[in-house]
Amino acid sequence: MAPELAPEMVPNSTLELAPDPAPDLAARIRHAIDTKTKPPGSLGRIEDLAAQIALLQGTLTPRMERAQLTIFAGDHGIAAEGVSAFPQAVTAQMVLNFLGGGAAANVFARTAGVALRVVDAGVAAELAHPELIVRKIAPGTANSAHGPAMTAAQCERARAAGAALGADGHADAVCFGEMGIANTAAATLVAHKITGRPVAELTGRGTGLDDGGLRRKTEVLQRAAGRTGALTPADALAEYGGFEIAMMAGAMAAAARARRLVIVDGFIASAAALVVLTEAPKLRGAMVFAHASAEAGHRAVLAHLRAEPLLSLGMRLGEGTGALLAWPLVRAAAAMLTDMASFDDAGVSRGL
Amino acid sequence: MAPELAPEMVPNSTLELAPDPAPDLAARIRHAIDTKTKPPGSLGRIEDLAAQIALLQGTLTPRMERAQLTIFAGDHGIAAEGVSAFPQAVTAQMVLNFLGGGAAANVFARTAGVALRVVDAGVAAELAHPELIVRKIAPGTANSAHGPAMTAAQCERARAAGAALGADGHADAVCFGEMGIANTAAATLVAHKITGRPVAELTGRGTGLDDGGLRRKTEVLQRAAGRTGALTPADALAEYGGFEIAMMAGAMAAAARARRLVIVDGFIASAAALVVLTEAPKLRGAMVFAHASAEAGHRAVLAHLRAEPLLSLGMRLGEGTGALLAWPLVRAAAAMLTDMASFDDAGVSRGL
Repeated sequence: MAPELAPEMVPNSTLELAPDPAPDLAARIRHAIDTKTKPPGSLGRIEDLAAQIALLQGTLTPRMERAQLTIFAGDHGIAAEGVSAFPQAVTAQMVLNFLGGGAAANVFARTAGVALRVVDAGVAAELAHPELIVRKIAPGTANSAHGPAMTAAQCERARAAGAALGADGHADAVCFGEMGIANTAAATLVAHKITGRPVAELTGRGTGLDDGGLRRKTEVLQRAAGRTGALTPADALAEYGGFEIAMMAGAMAAAARARRLVIVDGFIASAAALVVLTEAPKLRGAMVFAHASAEAGHRAVLAHLRAEPLLSLGMRLGEGTGALLAWPLVRAAAAMLTDMASFDDAGVSRGL
Repeated sequence: MAPELAPEMVPNSTLELAPDPAPDLAARIRHAIDTKTKPPGSLGRIEDLAAQIALLQGTLTPRMERAQLTIFAGDHGIAAEGVSAFPQAVTAQMVLNFLGGGAAANVFARTAGVALRVVDAGVAAELAHPELIVRKIAPGTANSAHGPAMTAAQCERARAAGAALGADGHADAVCFGEMGIANTAAATLVAHKITGRPVAELTGRGTGLDDGGLRRKTEVLQRAAGRTGALTPADALAEYGGFEIAMMAGAMAAAARARRLVIVDGFIASAAALVVLTEAPKLRGAMVFAHASAEAGHRAVLAHLRAEPLLSLGMRLGEGTGALLAWPLVRAAAAMLTDMASFDDAGVSRGL
């Protein structure tokens, strides 16, 4: 059953999502939620989430049946600076683990009923697997401690490849995950350039640096950040980002424009969302932030975006694991609006 | 497939759960979690949850396939004092709504794949429905503003009826929900007598009292509390509780003793858990607290139990809705331990 967009939509583009919902739709959605058989407001953030989904889909009966996770993998030249607790080879090894079904993302995707696919955005190894989607821009970025991570053209190619993947398929909600040793370093630098927050505030332990490792990572990133002045989001992404981050940004923007709900994962995914939303703030209506990562910089990025995540479980794995755990909440929210009885339907008395 | 309890269990009863896990099982569970293909600790509270489930089931490969929600409904004499924003008739109307599939609990149970059943623990109306489980102790409690809500014998009958329901079936995890107009008043009084926290601190708006209603409710509850001195948990439950709360307490204790994971819902369910855990603290190992309710007293009860809930979504509906939203997290946690590859399995390099 296709969502019934037409009757509730009017053709303008104030949301940068075409077509836009009818002007009174938000009020009608709120009324529908308030007349469900429950005290008004008693489902808290689930009600807000339901309203957001309904507005995005332009209907009073939204549906959230199908979700998909796309994991983008890429390597990072800055790993050579010793900014991660794990060796670079782990990126490729984990891609094979995803393809073999053994990673946390696979397990969570199975329990949540979410389809999973894996994209080689720029892993520094030759990977051959029948199910791997190869969109390799290059075998790893250049070392952004010393020069641009990628060229502007590479960045554009990565975003375009991501956009094609973000717009295909039939999912109602899309999760994007990432794998890339040293990619918290890349995300930290992108977030620093866009938010203006100090590198030291944004730098975290990633996969598990000790105190000495964290000091070293902070110094490396401060020096890398000092190479450049103010940058546009696109330039920050090319200068310091990763192929998987750029591809994820392209996918997020395209999915949002296609009126799919984008469930934003943790720190790396939020850095990609930061690029997208700085360039196109009105795509915010298509995004929900899954969880508050334990990675230091995530809190600052969420605050910058005025985003309040759904979950706070002390997770810091990436791979889209946080987004997968948020999917059941999204599904429940849409079903609440579409399937719950109203006071009138059920013959239940209202408040005194 | 039955859980493989035998090899990991030893016959003693220090947990009041028989049989108890082998003494080194906790360490072996932690090791198994730490060698999964992820940085140690990177799944945060999901790892703690997995460890709890594994210890409860006495195995390194726990399973969480089946969950069940039982909703207990009962009426409260204290509703006559005007302590709720909704009329008492709503309890019976909502029971019919549950049976008709239209309530929030039904919708969340469907999206989460959880079986749902409804028990008349003491509704003040004759209800006839082929799927309603009738365990009616009486048509509503007496008004605890003026005397005991129920006799000790009624309370015991309610707990025993709950225990039979908590121990039957084949669910790996059990959620207990409730419906009963004025039952935040009952839960507040039970929580006050057991925790010793002031009535004013524990009293909240329930289904939606305004400021005047909240003042009135607080005054009524303070007077009711003043009728009695210190009480045992069992006496507090009989003096101020409800049939649905007593039945829920019985069900929780029996389910925990049967080594089922009890997913504790919001304020009312936590008041029932408070009775159980004050009487039998070691059943705590079988309980996970689903969410932090927006109802005022819940925070205090959780603090008293040193419980940190999984979700915080501003919900205050009851019916087991918070427990249902936590179930996918429970399922993911067990699957993480049982199904994820280890570093050795997947040929992934460990940290440097």
